[in-house]
Amino acid sequence: MTKPRSRRVPRVLVLADRRPDGLDEVAAHADLVCVPEARLAAELPAADALLVWEFGTEALPAAWPGGGGGPRWVHTASAGVDRLMFPALRDSDTLVTNSRGVFEQPIAEWVAGQVIALAKDFAGTYERQRGRVWQHRVTERVADTYAVVLGGGPIGRAVVRTLRALGLRVDLVGRSRRDGDPEVGTVHAFGEFGELLARADWVVCAAPLTAETEDLFDAAAFARMKRGARFVNVGRGPMVVEKDLLAALEHGRLAGAALDVFRQEPLPADSPLWDAPNLLVSPHMSADTVSWLDDLAAVFADNFARWRTGRPLRNVVDKKLGYVPVAAAEPSAPTAPEEGA
Amino acid sequence: MTKPRSRRVPRVLVLADRRPDGLDEVAAHADLVCVPEARLAAELPAADALLVWEFGTEALPAAWPGGGGGPRWVHTASAGVDRLMFPALRDSDTLVTNSRGVFEQPIAEWVAGQVIALAKDFAGTYERQRGRVWQHRVTERVADTYAVVLGGGPIGRAVVRTLRALGLRVDLVGRSRRDGDPEVGTVHAFGEFGELLARADWVVCAAPLTAETEDLFDAAAFARMKRGARFVNVGRGPMVVEKDLLAALEHGRLAGAALDVFRQEPLPADSPLWDAPNLLVSPHMSADTVSWLDDLAAVFADNFARWRTGRPLRNVVDKKLGYVPVAAAEPSAPTAPEEGA
Repeated sequence: MTKPRSRRVPRVLVLADRRPDGLDEVAAHADLVCVPEARLAAELPAADALLVWEFGTEALPAAWPGGGGGPRWVHTASAGVDRLMFPALRDSDTLVTNSRGVFEQPIAEWVAGQVIALAKDFAGTYERQRGRVWQHRVTERVADTYAVVLGGGPIGRAVVRTLRALGLRVDLVGRSRRDGDPEVGTVHAFGEFGELLARADWVVCAAPLTAETEDLFDAAAFARMKRGARFVNVGRGPMVVEKDLLAALEHGRLAGAALDVFRQEPLPADSPLWDAPNLLVSPHMSADTVSWLDDLAAVFADNFARWRTGRPLRNVVDKKLGYVPVAAAEPSAPTAPEEGA
Repeated sequence: MTKPRSRRVPRVLVLADRRPDGLDEVAAHADLVCVPEARLAAELPAADALLVWEFGTEALPAAWPGGGGGPRWVHTASAGVDRLMFPALRDSDTLVTNSRGVFEQPIAEWVAGQVIALAKDFAGTYERQRGRVWQHRVTERVADTYAVVLGGGPIGRAVVRTLRALGLRVDLVGRSRRDGDPEVGTVHAFGEFGELLARADWVVCAAPLTAETEDLFDAAAFARMKRGARFVNVGRGPMVVEKDLLAALEHGRLAGAALDVFRQEPLPADSPLWDAPNLLVSPHMSADTVSWLDDLAAVFADNFARWRTGRPLRNVVDKKLGYVPVAAAEPSAPTAPEEGA
């Protein structure tokens, strides 16, 4: 029998009703405890790390310990971290990491599919099929149309690559201007967005929710868009003023829209968005493929192994920006768990 | 006043109820006459050329003059020429040309959209939206899945390029094997189709209808496919034994299908295909974009200018093969109208 290690094994909370698959290696090196939302406040003070597996939670701000307590590392099984940017966590020394790498390709495929589906009126074809109606229509090419993608992070970049592969002309708008970006060429500054928006056939929102982007798509923005343009949102719901989007669709300013995110999720049954003209309501699933839970567990397990052994973490969120800067996706900021502390 | 030309102006029939836009330049150099199907038999013997604008017509075989008469050039406003390959025309000296160049990109986009729509269950999302049902599901990535495209012509090639751009692995099956094809790499021989079919996640039919391809997708072919594979047809309906496809969908052998072509079009209202599980019925419109009529007129006008001035035509159909060979898409076979004959 080997002697038990004298150093304390880190206590890792998982916000989930049951332990996700794929965390055996974590459990071998941690005191891994799954807690439901109701027990979060009681468990957080003694935790070294928190895996926010149920990433739709809104329980964290109320449960977070006061007085600078709380785990030193929080990892979320999502790309967006807006739900973690409440003051007590944002202003703390706690490191926040996300699940960048899991969602980009599926989301980009979903966006490409919605662009084609809107251009070719797939929804109208499904609708007619239900009534056994054979009705030929002429539709649109997507090649050579022009799209503006808002969001310079990995999701926006994957969308740009995918739409360009389909022959669209695409501009990417990020936080600040950068020329000669090896992946996408020019990244336009946020200040250029209004001008590019006005020329776009397609406007795709793939940005993080921040103070700057909240309510960005309002009546003024839709009024600035080309008549007949279409809008796709895979970012976060609160970036869109939904009643303004509804009006833009009803007045024909926009020819269509596809939303995978909403201000309130699930979208309430009485929301007028459900039957807005030419609007697709998708239940926040564009990123979620058959392997997504395994992929999410693997991302956390990799970061846990780094944390445990004192190596830099991947996907460290810049809490001032509210997202993982492109340059910080790969390990760069050294951090170590204080075992035995 | 200039003296009228002594040479006879060629008489060009257009099978259409009214003259299509975009043929002014043709009309300036031809006796251009639009005829409905009912007058075709009476007008064909004196015609020099025929533009089959209403390309869905089935009137041509009965209307074609006997005894080796009939126009010396027939151009169809379609990619497929199967309706023109009746014996009297096929065995004549009449040149047949098609509208290659107009349909490839829209069809390829439609196929790519259907592949994504099937992988991401867009149909299920539309269906739930009708009932205001928010139901998250996990779906599939398309990147790194494997597709086999049947049809070595321009449509099949455009499909290959587009699916590859989305990250799929794609093999193309044509008539005979060709390595080092500059556009697609290897073209597999028709004899290899059965073997590739068995490995495919996606089988796309973009082949011309010929004696060899008729009824190709029958119970045996579907049985050879991977369980859970999906099928897309943008070729011609008679390549598919529809009752066998229906059975393959009902038994779950195939996880889905998207058809833009059918044995009988419009699809009869009592066809069981309308509500087959996971089958999309599209009313033969994948190729047809807002600019398609202009594009079709331009293709004919270009060929007419060539014909009138004795230059080689584009898109000359090899009547033994029943389609335009890739190498013959660009002008190669000299031909001249016999003005004054």
